[in-house]
Amino acid sequence: MARSMTVKQQAASATKGEQEIRGLVEAWSQALEAKDITGLTANYAPDAVLFDIKPPFRVRGVAAIRQVWEEYLPCLPAKFESERREFHMTAGEDAAFVHCLHHVRPLGETSRGPDTWIRVTVCYRKIGGKWQVVHEHVSLPFEPRTGQVSFITDPEG
Amino acid sequence: MARSMTVKQQAASATKGEQEIRGLVEAWSQALEAKDITGLTANYAPDAVLFDIKPPFRVRGVAAIRQVWEEYLPCLPAKFESERREFHMTAGEDAAFVHCLHHVRPLGETSRGPDTWIRVTVCYRKIGGKWQVVHEHVSLPFEPRTGQVSFITDPEG
Repeated sequence: MARSMTVKQQAASATKGEQEIRGLVEAWSQALEAKDITGLTANYAPDAVLFDIKPPFRVRGVAAIRQVWEEYLPCLPAKFESERREFHMTAGEDAAFVHCLHHVRPLGETSRGPDTWIRVTVCYRKIGGKWQVVHEHVSLPFEPRTGQVSFITDPEG
Repeated sequence: MARSMTVKQQAASATKGEQEIRGLVEAWSQALEAKDITGLTANYAPDAVLFDIKPPFRVRGVAAIRQVWEEYLPCLPAKFESERREFHMTAGEDAAFVHCLHHVRPLGETSRGPDTWIRVTVCYRKIGGKWQVVHEHVSLPFEPRTGQVSFITDPEG
């Protein structure tokens, strides 16, 4: 259904839950661009579980997730834009999830790392009337024959 | 809350949605052990999106997901058990998700591939009164310095 609607129509027909989740996603991007760890983890449940793109394979709890960000933020370009493709959202009454491809687009300099899109799934639960991230899964695929990571250079590909 | 309950208490207190999702997860494992592609994809929405462990980075639609299984099933041991650790479930009224570590344990022979656990997130939506998988994300992390996949040999690690 969403494909036949304009963005404006989608926004108008969005449920309250969809509007709330979209707000959290946009706030997260703003926090990422500002390298603001408190903002990045503001809506995580205390016992959230992260499956991150790099080891360790599972990070338990918001304190440990903050530590992941502490180590990762210095690797980001000085200025960049957080961009998404193929954003899909399902928001029910008390559970919701989104999945998309995410990309850090450097502004005014070349990228410091491989210029790849990454796959992101974020799962939310409404706890005490407030949406919280309880699980996040971030990854790239790998080639079974070589064991090498497979970067995503074309999100439409 | 779940941590302080026994398995029996959890089962007794499970909501209808939780019982239904658990049933789908168990049916999926039985279909995997039987190498039954129809069973494996029985509860997938027509436009489900899979982020698989290997390229392509995104598989769209149940027909394409069936094709992934057609190619993968011959790589599995003749007989094996589908086992899980750290299974977490959130089931609302009309949206639900689970995440866990999954492992194929060969029975009566050694594994044909690397003996790794994998990270799995499955997201469901209730469509027409029936739970359907609308998104699945399966991965392993990789080492940024080498670009090599990082296997999970100890799920408690």
